[in-house]
Amino acid sequence: MIMKKAVILLSGGLDSATCLAIAKQDGYELHALSFNYGQRHKFEIEAAKSVAKSIGAKNHINLTIDLRAFGGSALTDDIEVPKERDANQISDEIPITYVPARNTIFLSFGLAFAETIKSNDIFIGVNALDYSGYPDCRPEYIESFEKMAQLATKSGTEKNNQIRLHTPLIQLTKAEIIKTGLALGVNYGITHSCYDPVDKGNPCGACDACQIRLKGFLDAGLSDPLVYNK
Amino acid sequence: MIMKKAVILLSGGLDSATCLAIAKQDGYELHALSFNYGQRHKFEIEAAKSVAKSIGAKNHINLTIDLRAFGGSALTDDIEVPKERDANQISDEIPITYVPARNTIFLSFGLAFAETIKSNDIFIGVNALDYSGYPDCRPEYIESFEKMAQLATKSGTEKNNQIRLHTPLIQLTKAEIIKTGLALGVNYGITHSCYDPVDKGNPCGACDACQIRLKGFLDAGLSDPLVYNK
Repeated sequence: MIMKKAVILLSGGLDSATCLAIAKQDGYELHALSFNYGQRHKFEIEAAKSVAKSIGAKNHINLTIDLRAFGGSALTDDIEVPKERDANQISDEIPITYVPARNTIFLSFGLAFAETIKSNDIFIGVNALDYSGYPDCRPEYIESFEKMAQLATKSGTEKNNQIRLHTPLIQLTKAEIIKTGLALGVNYGITHSCYDPVDKGNPCGACDACQIRLKGFLDAGLSDPLVYNK
Repeated sequence: MIMKKAVILLSGGLDSATCLAIAKQDGYELHALSFNYGQRHKFEIEAAKSVAKSIGAKNHINLTIDLRAFGGSALTDDIEVPKERDANQISDEIPITYVPARNTIFLSFGLAFAETIKSNDIFIGVNALDYSGYPDCRPEYIESFEKMAQLATKSGTEKNNQIRLHTPLIQLTKAEIIKTGLALGVNYGITHSCYDPVDKGNPCGACDACQIRLKGFLDAGLSDPLVYNK
């Protein structure tokens, strides 16, 4: 039997690692796609490689794209990453760490990759609950991209080809994501979430991403296997 | 008075040069965006630079993106570019020169650029008539991307911000595009359309892009200022 192929966007963080494990559980041959987009550190890319290998991706492509050419975000510019914000208040506004059109760019490359390998299935680990307030993590955005993708591609114009964006985490809390991943054998000790790691890549424990992650483990009644700086 | 800003996707070809001139005529401050995506030659990028300068772009960004990582097209792989097809028959099927999700990737970067400079207006010179049969040149695709873009961005979530994709050429014949551009002072002698140029960048005259261009000048009762190889 030939396995169906899926493209999975893989940042190396907790969510995308869980997403990759879910795609595997769903029976897909895993084609992971990561981006080096001028973020401040390479620890994310190294984490993505470890996660892809650990979960058993058939293929893992790392694409370099220069989002710094536009600027406009704390993740690509030299703007200070905000620290010590309360995790319960993070979702209230779109933060400075928002990268303009980032998920749209990532999904567009995912679409190109999927079409090239004759896959109709793209997984992305967006989350509408503990989501840091990014507009391109909302369900209505995902649905809209899916409709556009169907019209954008040669594969979408062919009969019986339905391009699907899979967002298995979109309605889960961070605690539920962590429990799901652990049940599927995800090793969160090799994932990386921090926006502003110190020294050899240890998470800062204070940025939004660390705060949300730590609260997730706390809510799940578990402890994060990562060693934090504080 | 502060000029409204527009992002214009600029390939260096006849259509995008005309599009840039139309955006100027419409009163926008011009922010041109070009891509080096592993096509076979750099003549397109050089043409884009000349066109941006000639028409008076305030800003011109050249982004390198590696579409070769995926392969799947005669424009990025080592597949032979088809030659000597009849220009009247070119639109019947999606050709091997189709690059998976290309316009979606380009427009996504255009969206990121626009959001960064606080522009709501993106111009793309797609054409639904003499369009080489690409799915991502159709009006229904463009409308769908526009809807998605509104949901994708921080700017789209703000009141009274309507992100608009401008496609001034979409219902024009190539002859009409050429006449429009000439009336606006476009110098087509510095544009580049050929998929497979020879020697120092001279167009081959035989690929789909050359055939469509040549037919456009013929239909307009004009002659192309470019020197062809044949």
